Amino acid sequence: MYLILLFIRVVITIHSLTIINKYDYCALDNALIEEIKSYKNITTKIMNDIINTDLGPNMYKKYTEFIDKFGARPSGTEVLEQSIDYMVNLTIDAGIKDVATEEVEVPHWVRGFESVQMLEPRVKKIAVLGLGPSISTPNEGITADLVVVRSFNDLDKLPDEDVQGKIVLFDEVYTNYGDTVVYRVKSASKAAKKGAVASLIRSVTPFSLYTPHTGYQHYEKDVPKIPTAAITVEDAALLRRLYEQKQKIVLNIKMFSTYDRKKSRNTIIDFKGSKFPNKYVIVSGHIDSWDVGQGAMDDGGGMMISWFVPVVLKHFQLRPKRTLRAILWTSEEAGLVGAAAYLERHINELDKINFIMESDEGTFKPLGLDVGGSKTAQCIIAEILKLFPTIDKMTKSGSPGSDIVLFIKKGIPGASLLNENDKYFWFHHTEADTMEVQKMEDVVRCAAFWTAISYVIADLSVDIPRQ
Amino acid sequence: MYLILLFIRVVITIHSLTIINKYDYCALDNALIEEIKSYKNITTKIMNDIINTDLGPNMYKKYTEFIDKFGARPSGTEVLEQSIDYMVNLTIDAGIKDVATEEVEVPHWVRGFESVQMLEPRVKKIAVLGLGPSISTPNEGITADLVVVRSFNDLDKLPDEDVQGKIVLFDEVYTNYGDTVVYRVKSASKAAKKGAVASLIRSVTPFSLYTPHTGYQHYEKDVPKIPTAAITVEDAALLRRLYEQKQKIVLNIKMFSTYDRKKSRNTIIDFKGSKFPNKYVIVSGHIDSWDVGQGAMDDGGGMMISWFVPVVLKHFQLRPKRTLRAILWTSEEAGLVGAAAYLERHINELDKINFIMESDEGTFKPLGLDVGGSKTAQCIIAEILKLFPTIDKMTKSGSPGSDIVLFIKKGIPGASLLNENDKYFWFHHTEADTMEVQKMEDVVRCAAFWTAISYVIADLSVDIPRQ
Repeated sequence: MYLILLFIRVVITIHSLTIINKYDYCALDNALIEEIKSYKNITTKIMNDIINTDLGPNMYKKYTEFIDKFGARPSGTEVLEQSIDYMVNLTIDAGIKDVATEEVEVPHWVRGFESVQMLEPRVKKIAVLGLGPSISTPNEGITADLVVVRSFNDLDKLPDEDVQGKIVLFDEVYTNYGDTVVYRVKSASKAAKKGAVASLIRSVTPFSLYTPHTGYQHYEKDVPKIPTAAITVEDAALLRRLYEQKQKIVLNIKMFSTYDRKKSRNTIIDFKGSKFPNKYVIVSGHIDSWDVGQGAMDDGGGMMISWFVPVVLKHFQLRPKRTLRAILWTSEEAGLVGAAAYLERHINELDKINFIMESDEGTFKPLGLDVGGSKTAQCIIAEILKLFPTIDKMTKSGSPGSDIVLFIKKGIPGASLLNENDKYFWFHHTEADTMEVQKMEDVVRCAAFWTAISYVIADLSVDIPRQ
Repeated sequence: MYLILLFIRVVITIHSLTIINKYDYCALDNALIEEIKSYKNITTKIMNDIINTDLGPNMYKKYTEFIDKFGARPSGTEVLEQSIDYMVNLTIDAGIKDVATEEVEVPHWVRGFESVQMLEPRVKKIAVLGLGPSISTPNEGITADLVVVRSFNDLDKLPDEDVQGKIVLFDEVYTNYGDTVVYRVKSASKAAKKGAVASLIRSVTPFSLYTPHTGYQHYEKDVPKIPTAAITVEDAALLRRLYEQKQKIVLNIKMFSTYDRKKSRNTIIDFKGSKFPNKYVIVSGHIDSWDVGQGAMDDGGGMMISWFVPVVLKHFQLRPKRTLRAILWTSEEAGLVGAAAYLERHINELDKINFIMESDEGTFKPLGLDVGGSKTAQCIIAEILKLFPTIDKMTKSGSPGSDIVLFIKKGIPGASLLNENDKYFWFHHTEADTMEVQKMEDVVRCAAFWTAISYVIADLSVDIPRQ
């Protein structure tokens, strides 16, 4: 069936589309528009076959089994390596031999016992999650007065002597993740520069059920490293109220962890192109997760729908012109470590990457793509999106994805999955990142869309143009 | 100003309304309808004065300070008694001398260390909250295979030998609280009858961020007591999936607690009636809470808006004909213990209670009342609710409130606060029951409505008729 559709499509495609590079606005050549339109039957069939047969549900079942079997898969751990082996074997079992892993040295930060106790004005346990890779406290913990600020600006205004020897809590206002996460990443060094002995942040989330959110933080060079952790929205608000009432607040913070470096692996799965096997369209997600929760949403879903693309295209015997490469990045959560290693190793082959895609912001109901790259690239993707009724939204944030931002900065066009992820940050980096977040219908639709659109991009007669 | 309004109202009221008892449908006497309508200026003024001056916000401030100062106030604890003393003093400070406490013997169940570990098929920590008053496990915990069922019916179908010596997990489907909570209350004895050594339930909630919910459970007489606890929705689903895959699941459960009995107190605050001081309209909420969270929603809000009624009426010098009594119940969470003690102590004075109200299902945006009692009682309340645009909804569940159900069963008419509490059970009996749930605007509107409507009921020329 796919062969017949392909034949019909090829007949109506005109191969004179190099013209598109000359334009930097959406005046795409009619022939290209017609070529894109000619994929309608194929994309419809791909979507239908994945959604309305066992293919999609079976993928979801494999996904559930994977998450249930391994749970959290933090950077540098044995369980992450076991989960990588498992996905390699699953790929081979699906009949794909072109699967390889590439070694990467990754951080291995292991959370130990953590506690925060309010000692004054009353004794209260404060739920906490250390931010990786925080240093440990002394064995007896750090006991100090608390200073509460709402912003870096507020902190800057305080005299150093008001902060020295104290614990600083940033009860920052959540606006959106991009703007607010700077408090997670930078607060330790900001507080340390003022002489603080530890820093806490309000968890970066718009909603909480007394839910602490962990995540990556960065110690600035030549600034003393201090222990740093996230507390809940609820406790941050309580502590701020007490502070505003000028009550003396004393906390004890205990945090223990270990840090070393380990070997991990990026996983690379190819479905070789029929015409340009050395040109790549990459679909990707990261296989590692934080140590809390099950890494089902972040990024089990994105990893799984990307893994599924070469597997199901192979099953369909639907081979695009370019190679469709799925990459399961390792150690994204420790700072895009796997992606950076891939970039370094393949630095001389970047011209071969035609388009790079990542799903790392949820696999809720799919909506479209966030596209980075030249305006013409965006115009072509916008035209392709017209093939997907209700999944045709396009945004241009400038930096789609997480790992792939490294590639987009190098001028490679790419896109991340837009989906109905307005609750994504409720679950992000918490114990609540479980399979309960992931509804089968949504994940299957994401997988179907991800497969169909990456197929079209990989099969187009023209490359996606760069800047 | 209130006196002028009262005067106008009295003039147009006709005192010949005993007829209403003769009717059991909503053919209220016109004179009563006119009398009720005549309260419009007063209720509007009460609402406005509370909402649009400092009165409401100051009440909310007192409420926040109370919750922040004491946090959780479990039955039998010193902190509960301190919080009762605090409310007594707050009442006296507000100029009300008619405040008394009545001693009650209450359960004192203290949660100790609790943990559930999945040992097979992989090691995973399972978040847990014991259900009070669960017994403890042995020191080494209970290690046993897990059986997962979805209902009591499913359990009944299993041969006893499949359950004996095992841990039973009830992964019941949440429909609504009333129907689902039976799994919390009854599962331990149901499982023990089949020979189980411990029981777990899926937390009773429609939504979870990996949030365990505690609550009261009941050991049946002459059935072996076994340790019993709630786990999260997410882990219940995981364990069910593993069980359905016929994987061997082994758990270790450790739960330690102590149990004894202590003295506590109901708090009774009267604003004496001008005409019938020995007739009572009661407004109430419970001051105790579970040991997790801060008891802000359950039932700090309901307790506070009820406390506020005599206080603000006294401030207004707006004395109704009947005595307006606020009761802060103790030990509701351990099984309506304070309310039962009040009922027993005052059993010969029940005819003096004209109407009894309770707010124990949230103080979100107010919507109206859930009314229990005779049809005529309901008709009168419906007529009164017409005074409150947008807060005029009336339901007739048959058993409004929690503590007051004991009184309604005795034929006393009563009502509980209807409010926009569709998320109530997200927070209920969890660490997430904090001031973050309680928006000032909503609580103030609840307090204003609670005050105005209880005033009208206490001031009507007729008693609310019984069955």
